[in-house]
Amino acid sequence: MHSPPHQHGHTPHQARSVALHRAAVTELLKPVRAHGRTETLALRDALGKGLAQDVMAALNLPPFANSQMDGFAVNSLDVPDGGAKLSVVVPVPAGAVPAALDRGTAAPIMTGAMIPTGADAVVPVERAVPDRFPAPGETTTVWLPATAAGTFVRSAGSDIAAGERALTSGTFLGPAQLGLLAALGIAEVTVRRPVTVLLATTGDEVVEPGQPLPAGKIYDSNGTLLESAMRQAGLAVVRTAIASDHPDEFRALLRSHAGAVDLIVTTGGVSKGAYEVVRQAMDGQATEFLHVAMQPGGPQGIGTFDGVPFLGFPGNPVSCLVSFEMFLRPVLAELFGAPSPRIPVHARLGHSLSSPEHKHQVRRGTLQGDGTVRLEGGESSHLMHALAGSNALVHVPVGVSALAEGDEVEVWML
Amino acid sequence: MHSPPHQHGHTPHQARSVALHRAAVTELLKPVRAHGRTETLALRDALGKGLAQDVMAALNLPPFANSQMDGFAVNSLDVPDGGAKLSVVVPVPAGAVPAALDRGTAAPIMTGAMIPTGADAVVPVERAVPDRFPAPGETTTVWLPATAAGTFVRSAGSDIAAGERALTSGTFLGPAQLGLLAALGIAEVTVRRPVTVLLATTGDEVVEPGQPLPAGKIYDSNGTLLESAMRQAGLAVVRTAIASDHPDEFRALLRSHAGAVDLIVTTGGVSKGAYEVVRQAMDGQATEFLHVAMQPGGPQGIGTFDGVPFLGFPGNPVSCLVSFEMFLRPVLAELFGAPSPRIPVHARLGHSLSSPEHKHQVRRGTLQGDGTVRLEGGESSHLMHALAGSNALVHVPVGVSALAEGDEVEVWML
Repeated sequence: MHSPPHQHGHTPHQARSVALHRAAVTELLKPVRAHGRTETLALRDALGKGLAQDVMAALNLPPFANSQMDGFAVNSLDVPDGGAKLSVVVPVPAGAVPAALDRGTAAPIMTGAMIPTGADAVVPVERAVPDRFPAPGETTTVWLPATAAGTFVRSAGSDIAAGERALTSGTFLGPAQLGLLAALGIAEVTVRRPVTVLLATTGDEVVEPGQPLPAGKIYDSNGTLLESAMRQAGLAVVRTAIASDHPDEFRALLRSHAGAVDLIVTTGGVSKGAYEVVRQAMDGQATEFLHVAMQPGGPQGIGTFDGVPFLGFPGNPVSCLVSFEMFLRPVLAELFGAPSPRIPVHARLGHSLSSPEHKHQVRRGTLQGDGTVRLEGGESSHLMHALAGSNALVHVPVGVSALAEGDEVEVWML
Repeated sequence: MHSPPHQHGHTPHQARSVALHRAAVTELLKPVRAHGRTETLALRDALGKGLAQDVMAALNLPPFANSQMDGFAVNSLDVPDGGAKLSVVVPVPAGAVPAALDRGTAAPIMTGAMIPTGADAVVPVERAVPDRFPAPGETTTVWLPATAAGTFVRSAGSDIAAGERALTSGTFLGPAQLGLLAALGIAEVTVRRPVTVLLATTGDEVVEPGQPLPAGKIYDSNGTLLESAMRQAGLAVVRTAIASDHPDEFRALLRSHAGAVDLIVTTGGVSKGAYEVVRQAMDGQATEFLHVAMQPGGPQGIGTFDGVPFLGFPGNPVSCLVSFEMFLRPVLAELFGAPSPRIPVHARLGHSLSSPEHKHQVRRGTLQGDGTVRLEGGESSHLMHALAGSNALVHVPVGVSALAEGDEVEVWML
């Protein structure tokens, strides 16, 4: 995968498309999936993880025909047109197996309770005359209106039938998916283990937050930004100290951790300046440094370091986050079922914008309640404050050089 | 807050609007905010929490004028129309404080490096002739095109200026917000402590997943569903065992935990059936059981139990999740800054639908890449499998009884 440095990586005909680079990241990470590492967890511990195998329903949901309302269980033949007066028998609480219903009678039944044998419909209590349940022990009758068979009955298996596939391998396990597993009586689930990432931020100019800031230096925000985004996406993250700009030291730093991780992600040092520590440290490794037709986040490194998959993100914070969202997050969602994928949303631009025609531009913005998206900050990749005020990424595809206020754009909610 | 049971809670004129009930939940939970409990955490531990106070920028971002490109720092007066040939001086790496730039010279400068005194613009290296940096020690000249002052210079404070408000109290701390704090050199942040919820699922018909399932019983999915949703939203959750339908036992169960929590949430037992354990257990408490003009999730309880705020959700799983999303989650986002609020998204319906005109209907659906939303399952509140296949809630407001394919709806991404 060696290639000479791009001297003109910004010119469109030499840049790789976003789709091709994402495909390259997928190829890079597929072997990580092949490790097939799974773990079996109690449901509460599986939140945010990717299901490792299909789950089939071992029972019907609901398990038995039950009432959708508080009302009277009847045989619909007993309440023909014009309704009928029926004797009220003992009530059916939820959780009980009721006695069979005799013809000509009505059984008070609670929501979720099993429909008695012989009954095929429920009349809601508020449609009965009188519109209440008799007191315990009271012998009485009730008038009920005409009711078709099946009314307010949830039939067995109407949610899912026994033997059907409830969830597919690779499904992201959020509250609803875990709730479904619980409804099926499943207490433990087999999930993919999280991908472990070594995150190394580079730069002689970068200082840890909380330390004094010498002139010419900046605080490292990439580490916090990317570690948070990765942890939110369910990755296990190993952070190194901020790496110096000495390639030998940087190589040693990576080697001290590489055996324990699935993926190395670096920030900075991938561009065509004179002091590009990541490029220099990767000399002799099966890595490639190239330009993706994307703004920000164009300069990218990809390959392996001592056999461990490696992604080199650029050094500006916005570029880092965009790189993560465009390349790593969607590939992880696809290969591992976690994190949950970003769903593209369509919104109307609150302003006009311009974009380099040969690049996929990713702007930051705030999707508002009226369906418009307000851009936050300019296109520059150092604007952390604008990023922190945004709730969405706004996509301007290749081939578009200008958009007007009101034009529709694709937006990813952060 | 006592009120008689609603015999006709389903009729529209007696139901409370969604907005009024949400306002009541806000009033109920405001005193929890007033506790003012905060904690100071390292940035990495503050992910997903709500900022407890405004954060002001103590420094400019960027802290000093720096280069946006790898290129040559120049005085723009030295490169007038037609360009000029300049002597190349020693390069400026990122992280260094460079010597002042003499007139008539150009300093190789790396992205992020400090602009030398005397320079006011950067020419990208690829626009120079030759379009590369000289080798170390090489004495040479470079031809550079005309360049306006300020070109490719990120001025000090252009992202945020010292003294400006960086983040507002109550901001949800996601990756970007934590990244901004790191960029400002801040290593620890004061956040609101999570709200602690006692979650009690009720019902004699309900069995824990993993146990055998007797006839007439169902597995408890509400506990897993709501606990997961609450934990995902940053709440601390205390689960009770499944409560029986005996009011005295249920009261004792709540009392054994109530002193240690901020809020009690129950599921089931709030409707108008004959065995409504939550209603019965709340007898004598300042609670109210009412109908909200919403489908599903109409029957709701609200008030205090022994002085602890209490919300009683209905017993069907979809109703539980809708209750959480409609009432508890948005109020917590507003009062505590966490979780991050759901942003309304506009989408086109993939099908027609009908809705009770006097209720706010919440359907489940899948927002697709083309901007349409496909409904999953019907309107019935027991359809866990359909919920587990959805990625969004679809809102049909009061006053609407039918929508056609292609009509615009408001959608909340789950």
